[in-house]
Amino acid sequence: MKSYSTMKKHYKEDPWRIIEEGFYPEMQKSSESIFSLGNGRMGQRANFEENYSGPTLQGNYVAGVYYPDKTRVGWWKNGYPEYFAKVLNAANWIGIVPILKDEELDLAKCEVSNFRRELNMKEGYLSRSFEATMQNGVSIKVEAIRFLSMVDDETAAIRYKVTPLNYSGKVKFRCFIDGDIINQDSNYDEKFWSEVEKETENDEAYLTLKTKKLDFHVCTGQKVYAYKNGERVSFDSNQLERRKYVENLVTIPAEEGDELVVYKYAVNVASINHSKRELKSRAEEAVYMSAEKGFDQMFENHKAAWARKWEMNDITIEGDVAAQQAIRFNIFQLNQTYTGEDPKLNIGPKGFTGEKYGGGTYWDTEAYCLPFYMLTAGSHVAKNLLLYRYRQLDKAIENAQKLGFDKGAALYPMVTMNGEECHNEWEITFEEIHRNGAIAFAIYNYINHTGDESYLKEGGLEVLIAISRFWAQRVNWSTHREKYVMLGVTGPNEYENNVNNNWYTNYIARWTLTYTIEAIAKVKDDANFWSDFSAKTNFDVAGETQLWNKIVEQIYFPKKENSNLFLQQDGFLDKVDITVKELDPSQRPINQKWSWDRILRSIFIKQADVLQGMYFFEKDFSEEVIRENFDYYEPRTVHESSLSPCVHVVLASKLGMEEKAYEMYLRTARLDLDDYNHEADEGLHITSMAGTWMAVVEGFGGKRITDGRLSFNPSIPKGWESYSFNLVYRESIIRITVNSENIELRNLSDGEIEILVYGKAYAVKGKLNISR
Amino acid sequence: MKSYSTMKKHYKEDPWRIIEEGFYPEMQKSSESIFSLGNGRMGQRANFEENYSGPTLQGNYVAGVYYPDKTRVGWWKNGYPEYFAKVLNAANWIGIVPILKDEELDLAKCEVSNFRRELNMKEGYLSRSFEATMQNGVSIKVEAIRFLSMVDDETAAIRYKVTPLNYSGKVKFRCFIDGDIINQDSNYDEKFWSEVEKETENDEAYLTLKTKKLDFHVCTGQKVYAYKNGERVSFDSNQLERRKYVENLVTIPAEEGDELVVYKYAVNVASINHSKRELKSRAEEAVYMSAEKGFDQMFENHKAAWARKWEMNDITIEGDVAAQQAIRFNIFQLNQTYTGEDPKLNIGPKGFTGEKYGGGTYWDTEAYCLPFYMLTAGSHVAKNLLLYRYRQLDKAIENAQKLGFDKGAALYPMVTMNGEECHNEWEITFEEIHRNGAIAFAIYNYINHTGDESYLKEGGLEVLIAISRFWAQRVNWSTHREKYVMLGVTGPNEYENNVNNNWYTNYIARWTLTYTIEAIAKVKDDANFWSDFSAKTNFDVAGETQLWNKIVEQIYFPKKENSNLFLQQDGFLDKVDITVKELDPSQRPINQKWSWDRILRSIFIKQADVLQGMYFFEKDFSEEVIRENFDYYEPRTVHESSLSPCVHVVLASKLGMEEKAYEMYLRTARLDLDDYNHEADEGLHITSMAGTWMAVVEGFGGKRITDGRLSFNPSIPKGWESYSFNLVYRESIIRITVNSENIELRNLSDGEIEILVYGKAYAVKGKLNISR
Repeated sequence: MKSYSTMKKHYKEDPWRIIEEGFYPEMQKSSESIFSLGNGRMGQRANFEENYSGPTLQGNYVAGVYYPDKTRVGWWKNGYPEYFAKVLNAANWIGIVPILKDEELDLAKCEVSNFRRELNMKEGYLSRSFEATMQNGVSIKVEAIRFLSMVDDETAAIRYKVTPLNYSGKVKFRCFIDGDIINQDSNYDEKFWSEVEKETENDEAYLTLKTKKLDFHVCTGQKVYAYKNGERVSFDSNQLERRKYVENLVTIPAEEGDELVVYKYAVNVASINHSKRELKSRAEEAVYMSAEKGFDQMFENHKAAWARKWEMNDITIEGDVAAQQAIRFNIFQLNQTYTGEDPKLNIGPKGFTGEKYGGGTYWDTEAYCLPFYMLTAGSHVAKNLLLYRYRQLDKAIENAQKLGFDKGAALYPMVTMNGEECHNEWEITFEEIHRNGAIAFAIYNYINHTGDESYLKEGGLEVLIAISRFWAQRVNWSTHREKYVMLGVTGPNEYENNVNNNWYTNYIARWTLTYTIEAIAKVKDDANFWSDFSAKTNFDVAGETQLWNKIVEQIYFPKKENSNLFLQQDGFLDKVDITVKELDPSQRPINQKWSWDRILRSIFIKQADVLQGMYFFEKDFSEEVIRENFDYYEPRTVHESSLSPCVHVVLASKLGMEEKAYEMYLRTARLDLDDYNHEADEGLHITSMAGTWMAVVEGFGGKRITDGRLSFNPSIPKGWESYSFNLVYRESIIRITVNSENIELRNLSDGEIEILVYGKAYAVKGKLNISR
Repeated sequence: MKSYSTMKKHYKEDPWRIIEEGFYPEMQKSSESIFSLGNGRMGQRANFEENYSGPTLQGNYVAGVYYPDKTRVGWWKNGYPEYFAKVLNAANWIGIVPILKDEELDLAKCEVSNFRRELNMKEGYLSRSFEATMQNGVSIKVEAIRFLSMVDDETAAIRYKVTPLNYSGKVKFRCFIDGDIINQDSNYDEKFWSEVEKETENDEAYLTLKTKKLDFHVCTGQKVYAYKNGERVSFDSNQLERRKYVENLVTIPAEEGDELVVYKYAVNVASINHSKRELKSRAEEAVYMSAEKGFDQMFENHKAAWARKWEMNDITIEGDVAAQQAIRFNIFQLNQTYTGEDPKLNIGPKGFTGEKYGGGTYWDTEAYCLPFYMLTAGSHVAKNLLLYRYRQLDKAIENAQKLGFDKGAALYPMVTMNGEECHNEWEITFEEIHRNGAIAFAIYNYINHTGDESYLKEGGLEVLIAISRFWAQRVNWSTHREKYVMLGVTGPNEYENNVNNNWYTNYIARWTLTYTIEAIAKVKDDANFWSDFSAKTNFDVAGETQLWNKIVEQIYFPKKENSNLFLQQDGFLDKVDITVKELDPSQRPINQKWSWDRILRSIFIKQADVLQGMYFFEKDFSEEVIRENFDYYEPRTVHESSLSPCVHVVLASKLGMEEKAYEMYLRTARLDLDDYNHEADEGLHITSMAGTWMAVVEGFGGKRITDGRLSFNPSIPKGWESYSFNLVYRESIIRITVNSENIELRNLSDGEIEILVYGKAYAVKGKLNISR
């Protein structure tokens, strides 16, 4: 087994905390991602409060606020979306810059010692301390702490403490909100915000910005209090306003050793949640309420909210601190990203931790995130995620029309903010159509877990039919093969482009058709519903399902002769057949070392593709078939998509490949902490974090739904003493704890539930111990 | 036969002129392309001298001056070029705006009558006349004429005559040079020029601009003379300067009916030809010389230069004015674009008529243009074109290295200004590698025509070996097929992407290897040369050619079973098999109507691909095989590349398909005049115009080189009485005239030459008549 200890470890291991000791400017951008905070409504990278002239990626994100950056350039393809939606770096609200003897603190220009940064995942805050000697010789000690409130989700607070170590005199704090920020991911170096209004008073300041397109307004406000050695001090603030910038300058006379504390209460209030007219007064109100409550009380409430989250969400792992820390980091970030409360919102691949992928909704939501929220937060959150797509069905039908489809066929966008496609690579926009299948699969998955078949009538079937219509039009009959084929697609493995007969896409297309036909049978007897539904969707049940059945029977799947090996696509066996082990490590990650054409024609797989299909449709394949495909594909997979390793954990666990499962588990769980793909600086892989959760629950825990019953086939990695997690299953909350000898099931709800363990049914009421 | 008369005809038919009668604002951008002027050193779209607020594409281009527009955007692929070179719209030097009663003439705001525009191809000038009633009620008559001198290629002249029809009073002429111009093809709406210096005197003005990148300087100058009723008038010019703009304002008092003429002598002088310090004085000198010579004398010299061109270049067609006009239009534009005199220059796909394709060098040069220049301008021009690539060999090797190749393998760029790749679509940059083969083929083609085998030692072999090395590394052994395969390419048919085993690419790769091995045999006996050469190229002749031979023997070609049909690529037979005839005409051109994915998976072919290979390597295939492939592919080809129809003329002629050949001839010859692909507004298809020449010479004329002898297999389209053209072949100039009964050969040089006609050898000295 590849020992974890031989791998890169920048952060200290701890079950509940991420700790960085020492100041590493070259790691700053990565650490800014790792130590990000969020509360579902907004997020903030771990940028420094003070100036920092070293490499940094500033990021303050407000949920639901985005920018349609134009994508038209010389090499346009007909049919491209006009814009790529960008998550917006909004006004910098954290700014607090100590100024001593006319020098502004900037760690890039200081001697720094005793630097320590800690993300407390249990209580949801970031703390940082260090000593710095500035260029003018002044030494100070700084201790800062901040959180984004999980209770009042538009508010945040910072406590920033400075102790002059060799200096007496005036200490100034430049407390600012700066809207003149850049967006790294801008296609045209454009600034996305313009100023609406601003106001500065003695100890408070407000800045309202609007986006240059779509007219989103965000008012950012701050209120600043100062203390010296525990005593509140009043101060006369110089106020400064310049374009898109407001400031309260706090000046405190101090002696060497004095503890000077600035509290900053900040808010981000957005027009997607409030009327534009009231934005400023809403911000004032929120700032006042925070200040009145005070930092300590706000903090207590915030910690209590996190405690409630953890009660339901936590996965404990005994005996492997690295694994424990990692799974909590993943769960922590998922909770910071999406709470499921606001049906307008969804889950961006980077959450609130970076600009990449534009903050839009991808198939990640359905394929990876849905199970986590469904099984920890409950079915209403899962249903919100389904309804998000249902509400966008008209746009998906429009999108398909633009591409030449008709009669109600829907192609959901690869990435969207409002239902419109806003990706910007033709290979993905036009060809990565398997996403449509994942959206259909999520409906099945939801109903399979919740038993809530009524959702078919509430929107599910309408989506299924529209997607089935798309598949039926997208395949074509090959007279040469005498089969239906699907040409010119890109599968989940994005290291291929424009391939024919991607096995996964063909499979999920066929599955959609089959499931839609089954779903029709379930609701067709409700004559009222059915006649309304048929009219609304203009559905020719006999004609359309006849064609679908024909496609189901006659669609082509590439397969290696005389074997059980399904081929990722036509022609796959023509590639140079080498494994990742044979690849010079200096060439990895290949997406940073190789030109695109070389990647495309190589055998190396970015993420599970055939295996993704076997994960979704496991029941269709014998263990022997899965094993043959796993043994072939896994060694050729570079896992340069964050969404890859988790699927391999689940399959490897099923196949009893414990070492492989554990290796893949660390890779998914510690993907960002150990930065396997050298890209943590761009933000965290939020949606894949749900895959990490899946890896424990469905991989080691072997959780499945078997004929409507919750079932487990637990295994446990060698070094682990035990692990445990909770699941919401229909009316019950179940806790399972696995160690090398026993499996303990607890039904935390009233009543009794039948659960399968290793295929044997147990009626669980209260606590039940099963020997392994 | 599709009658030409049923097709769109905007311009009047005339053997020597392109004539537009009537003012058609909706056609203005297309006409600006059609009526473009150029002299190999600079080019000017037929923009109006006066203001024009209607749709227009301003274009003044200076050969060799370009701009590396950055291409980096969010959807970057690793390995992309950093820039796309743009042909630059340079300062507008044609500006002459009549001002009467305070209104500036602007045809978009006038009532216009008797509008007539004429491109005189025989004498190389553009004239225009019209009457206009301005918004203030003033009516004037305007007659303008201009040319870009073929003798002094940095100079141009305009005669602009205004006759007030209902007005007496001051007539002003705002004669300006405006450098504050835009480039339509800018990726980022950037302005590419900044001002260096300017100077305005009474009747002259100079503006020097430099490009913001690469520091190209261009000084544009003008000198203005005025005449009234044939008498020179002096004038006091108001001079106005603003940013990047200079002006001489000429004011002439006039009576109704007076003929007021402004002569403008203009120059464009560029730093690629002169030192920057001397640019301004060089411009002054050129302006003075022009003015001294005077318009009429300059014009006479210019016409004489054109007469000399036509003497050698002209193709006459009797009995079909549309065909005659068209072939001359093609030859005229080719001569305007490239003269072959400056080895720094090459041939952009749009020449000097538009910004598209950036003015860079494509494989068009080798595959289409080389034969025209080689056989009309002579072997030294052809050799200049070959040397252009030889000089860029190091960059081609570097380019291949960037993509992971080594050991001296070269991949020439898809588009270049200086040897560096500067295209901007990954599918083309990385995958359209067949271009490498065309560059090898051009060496063969040159030697085959000229007999100049010494070129192998002068650079040819070095290029051939570097390209062969590329092919040998680019193929891979498929254990599955037990053949060499070539994966992930894009063939000439750009309506496919990232395909495996493109037949054409595999074929030209194999051909390169074979020809390189033959070429080695021809020079290897020169021991001195060979030892230097082997050392310089680090060439392991035994080892490398052994591998090449193996690849030649075992490379895979997709073919339909039990047929002679070569398949464009793997999987081609899986497509929905329909022909262009079955496609709804409203859906054409598909590149403007269909989304990119739909085009990719459709069977429709943009341009000859398999047939391109059969054109190059005709000798390798029996007529039966060519016919079977032609009959299959042609009906599936939409010819949305300008480079497609000409190849079909040559093959159809060979196959005796006269109607198809003539249909395709009109399509290539009148592509822009009749705007088949709805894109003449963007500029003309200059490189395909050489294909039109090929269509006559190799198609109808059936010209080939057979065992080192010039040979003809002439046919003649039904409606034609006769056609004739000249060819330079080795030491001789041959004129061939074909009518329905006879073929007349004239040897215009001294001596005797053996020529094959219909396979029979004739010794030609002076004139020879052969019955058909």
